[in-house]
Amino acid sequence: MPTRMRLTDINLLEVLSSPEYARFLKEFREQQFSKKAILFSPNDEKNLVFLVKSGKIRVYLAYEDKEFTLSILEAGDIYSTHTRAFTQAMEDTTILVTDVRNFKKIIAEFPAFGLNMVNVLGDLLKNSITIINGLVFKDTHLRLAEFLVQAVKDRGVTVEQGIKLELGLTTEEIALVLGATRQTVSVLLNDLRKSGILEKLSRRTILVKDLKRLQEISSGF
Amino acid sequence: MPTRMRLTDINLLEVLSSPEYARFLKEFREQQFSKKAILFSPNDEKNLVFLVKSGKIRVYLAYEDKEFTLSILEAGDIYSTHTRAFTQAMEDTTILVTDVRNFKKIIAEFPAFGLNMVNVLGDLLKNSITIINGLVFKDTHLRLAEFLVQAVKDRGVTVEQGIKLELGLTTEEIALVLGATRQTVSVLLNDLRKSGILEKLSRRTILVKDLKRLQEISSGF
Repeated sequence: MPTRMRLTDINLLEVLSSPEYARFLKEFREQQFSKKAILFSPNDEKNLVFLVKSGKIRVYLAYEDKEFTLSILEAGDIYSTHTRAFTQAMEDTTILVTDVRNFKKIIAEFPAFGLNMVNVLGDLLKNSITIINGLVFKDTHLRLAEFLVQAVKDRGVTVEQGIKLELGLTTEEIALVLGATRQTVSVLLNDLRKSGILEKLSRRTILVKDLKRLQEISSGF
Repeated sequence: MPTRMRLTDINLLEVLSSPEYARFLKEFREQQFSKKAILFSPNDEKNLVFLVKSGKIRVYLAYEDKEFTLSILEAGDIYSTHTRAFTQAMEDTTILVTDVRNFKKIIAEFPAFGLNMVNVLGDLLKNSITIINGLVFKDTHLRLAEFLVQAVKDRGVTVEQGIKLELGLTTEEIALVLGATRQTVSVLLNDLRKSGILEKLSRRTILVKDLKRLQEISSGF
């Protein structure tokens, strides 16, 4: 997943540690989680906000036979547990937790916290829409991934940043091969790009950056 | 769609109209749209933020054969056009538009604008997750809606707020009827509740508040 666009470069952890904001930090409780531990699940009724102090957290939706990753939270990111998703530590992780009421007070005094949350929510929403596109166009999504995996096997060239692939076909021609509309293929290629799986180099050449993920999609995961 | 929880009751339109914030209002451009007009579509590359001055706007994802409503924006709501969804005026609508840079300046001086955006994004995300659940559990979702529509026909009692329905079955028993797991039915019933389509009155009694929407779901829309 590509690093999201940052609306602010202010280090919120430094802000909270400064004497000026010590009174807010007092309201936070530090919690540690080992790698793979579940932090919060959608059934928790608590409405908390946390700031990632260190480590990495995966935000995801889980179903009986599949999971969808919505975002990866890193140090400095703010997240509300009210969101209907699971959060799991990807490595040993420390968070600073507070309740929504205290968080609102902090935003009122230090708006960068609000901007950070807008950032994280925007990222979650963007990835949710990508998941919806993939589900709506399920068959085409799978076949497009299959098509690309096969093309990589046939004529992919390993370069420093990934695998360079001369498609030799326009989006319209790929759509014809897959039996889909040009618009659908265009939306799905765009989603693969936004998810950091591939990059467009020129009209008919792409760079595959995450072949493993592409193989997973082609297998229906 | 139920009115979303408001993090703040501050009237942002009043704030912008006050002399203190006149310098920010100057940076906004007023735009009017007739009922049914499309404000922005996902292909617009512009990165703008707007505040709804009057009217109502539907935020939705559109596919060849279906649409998903993500949110209804009302006066005072803030929205970023960067979101990958369509926006359409549901009635004659006036918005105040500015670029992201100016909006960030406003948030820095008046954090309530950031909180409002957190609100709107949280609502969009919540509804996106509901749509993902519906797509993942497509068959069960449809059959559950069919089951409820049939039950309303058989033994629904019209009351002031909607149609009162004695299910006579627990979630586990409904799951058995539908050939699904109890957990899946529980998630979907919860989504119907969160979408304002029904309300739980007691363990085996529900209030159907939007029969039309339930019928649409049972028909695959």
